[in-house]
Amino acid sequence: MAEFFNVLPPDEARRLFLQHIRPLGDTETLPALAALGRITHDAIVAPHSLPTFRRSTMDGYAVRATDTHGAGESLPALLQVIGEVPMGRAASYVLNTGQAVVIHTGGMLPDTADAVVQIEHTQIVGGLNPAQFPYEIEVGRSVACGQNVIQIGEDVAANTEILPAGSRLRPQDVGGLLALGIGQVVLVRQPRVAIISTGDEVVPPDTPLGPGQIHDINSYTIAGQVFQAGGEAEIMGIVPDDLPALGAAAAQALAKADMLVISAGSSVSVRDRTIEVIEALGQPGVLLHGVATRPGKPTILGVVDGKPVLGLPGNPVSAMVQFVMFGVPAIYRLQGVSRADIKERLWARLEQNIASASGREDYIPARLVDAGQGMLAVPIFGKSNLIYTLVQADGLIKVPLNVGGLIAGDLVEVLLL
Amino acid sequence: MAEFFNVLPPDEARRLFLQHIRPLGDTETLPALAALGRITHDAIVAPHSLPTFRRSTMDGYAVRATDTHGAGESLPALLQVIGEVPMGRAASYVLNTGQAVVIHTGGMLPDTADAVVQIEHTQIVGGLNPAQFPYEIEVGRSVACGQNVIQIGEDVAANTEILPAGSRLRPQDVGGLLALGIGQVVLVRQPRVAIISTGDEVVPPDTPLGPGQIHDINSYTIAGQVFQAGGEAEIMGIVPDDLPALGAAAAQALAKADMLVISAGSSVSVRDRTIEVIEALGQPGVLLHGVATRPGKPTILGVVDGKPVLGLPGNPVSAMVQFVMFGVPAIYRLQGVSRADIKERLWARLEQNIASASGREDYIPARLVDAGQGMLAVPIFGKSNLIYTLVQADGLIKVPLNVGGLIAGDLVEVLLL
Repeated sequence: MAEFFNVLPPDEARRLFLQHIRPLGDTETLPALAALGRITHDAIVAPHSLPTFRRSTMDGYAVRATDTHGAGESLPALLQVIGEVPMGRAASYVLNTGQAVVIHTGGMLPDTADAVVQIEHTQIVGGLNPAQFPYEIEVGRSVACGQNVIQIGEDVAANTEILPAGSRLRPQDVGGLLALGIGQVVLVRQPRVAIISTGDEVVPPDTPLGPGQIHDINSYTIAGQVFQAGGEAEIMGIVPDDLPALGAAAAQALAKADMLVISAGSSVSVRDRTIEVIEALGQPGVLLHGVATRPGKPTILGVVDGKPVLGLPGNPVSAMVQFVMFGVPAIYRLQGVSRADIKERLWARLEQNIASASGREDYIPARLVDAGQGMLAVPIFGKSNLIYTLVQADGLIKVPLNVGGLIAGDLVEVLLL
Repeated sequence: MAEFFNVLPPDEARRLFLQHIRPLGDTETLPALAALGRITHDAIVAPHSLPTFRRSTMDGYAVRATDTHGAGESLPALLQVIGEVPMGRAASYVLNTGQAVVIHTGGMLPDTADAVVQIEHTQIVGGLNPAQFPYEIEVGRSVACGQNVIQIGEDVAANTEILPAGSRLRPQDVGGLLALGIGQVVLVRQPRVAIISTGDEVVPPDTPLGPGQIHDINSYTIAGQVFQAGGEAEIMGIVPDDLPALGAAAAQALAKADMLVISAGSSVSVRDRTIEVIEALGQPGVLLHGVATRPGKPTILGVVDGKPVLGLPGNPVSAMVQFVMFGVPAIYRLQGVSRADIKERLWARLEQNIASASGREDYIPARLVDAGQGMLAVPIFGKSNLIYTLVQADGLIKVPLNVGGLIAGDLVEVLLL
């Protein structure tokens, strides 16, 4: 049964909701190449050092650094070049005092070399590049031991944790795995999120509208949000607004899914019905109905057997905003995501005053403008149920819980849409 | 032939590069539901107004506003409730003076009503909700004409441009289209980007490393970046580092693709070969080789027959950074994207000083930390060719062209990775 039947501040509501959600244990192993955007199940550890050999960062000559000490423009060091390290091969040369080998960027240093002199700081004695080794060069600058060299393990040392469990893989992460020869990754299975729309006025998007009817759009906006958060959306369609039909559809959907979203009408009677439906699904059921936010106060948060069940207000703006606040974190929790996506929000300067009631978190759609030094958030005012305020918006300005409003010039948090 | 053979500042280089790229004309028509993340080919105009009828934003009573004028707690207006508007149906009632009908959130207003009184501001005369109409209510607050009502076209008016050509569709955009019953969208075809890796030291990621060898990772990090920018990557594999082989592979790849990326070794000889290969592909060929940035100075920008051809340095960090700077904008240009993704960058406070040379744009990997009021950018120093500096990073701090460095506390631009 519900632990609270009152309106909670959003942070508390989220904490309560996430606490009851059980992360998916299931894994799926995929080639690293196919794992972009997916979440790692386990921490990943470097099986060996990277690089595996000492590499040059420059085109030039591999040398013994001591042979260049004291060298300068006016008194160059004279070295004998005995060969060239081929790319992608072992560097088999043994350098004696005063010897050097030609090396290219990324080439392997011979064991007996410890630094690289850039080609720009050398000159071939007698001018042109001779046809055969050995030949002599003048080195016009001294190099320190290790200079222009990447050491073994300098990129990553063997047995280092390279990615924590719950990491969302980006292009560079996939690159890092492949660099170490890690071709297969154990990932969290993608959560399946079932979406039910209800409301006697709601018809499918491809049905012409009769009087008093509107198109179902929440199923599709929420499906898009599910996809972006890493889940798989299953659109269950529009269910008639009566208790047995909705109850049966919800039970059937939840049996096969990891999470259920019911986008209901916003009227009080429909909301009460959604609460009843969620309560009938199982334990603990409804955790709270009512969050101190605008838009979206009548949101219903429930958990059944560890699976999140979200009852969203029917108006599309409230539904999207509340899904940002509770749906996305729930999908993250199911996947064990260790850190929210850095691209989800930013800070910007507010362009004009915003009034707000204390004791409530407001989310105001806004367009972002690059002001040269920082971003400017330009609020888009309008009734909270107009989808086109979100089409025009880049994000939502957060007006914190206990402020009476925000002043032009304030630094504000913007959740990106 | 090349117009410049010198090092250009990155903004100028990008302008020159983009100028020569021909946007794809090709279109593809998809269901709006499948168009998430894709780019619109044409501006989209609202075929009709939204909403199509006057809707209530509250649970309560549809009234004639004048009937409530002067009403207050101490002197309520008395109205006769003659029926209830069913959800999703026409509101067929005709209100006479002093009459009202029950209405739910989202319900359709009768033609003769012009405002809605919230249920909270009314009281049924005699207490409980009577079993049948008519019954009487007391209205304790006056409402203005239009109050608690969304007017026809208030969300969007017929014939308004709702999305410009070149818009990347987000969940709310898909919702906006469906709300208007727009089920099919004309999109730009996704650009096909062929990626060739070259370098004698480079082996496929599933091949064990011999001495002096490294795994090909650039093909895969770049493929991820291509995908994120809206393109389709075609990985052509590793091509031997000689002119005829590379030339043939490049010509074959470009014939079937809309863009070609050659990730080459960084050594001077390999770079010269890449230039020769691009020059042989067609007109205008290489536009410039050398951009005033670090990392990534030896980047080669070319265009062949309107198709971008990018020669990237072999080291994975330079390659990724340069792809952010030139590859992503090229893919946008091919698709006619009208506005860069707002999630690509943000501004943050610098955590510590960064030294830099004037006359060069530097990109320093950084981790972002939410400082409560704004983000803090913590630079990750390290040689520019270590992929794990990017694995640890959230983005790249931009050190502008003509500054000698940045000071702790400065507001800096961070390109998100």
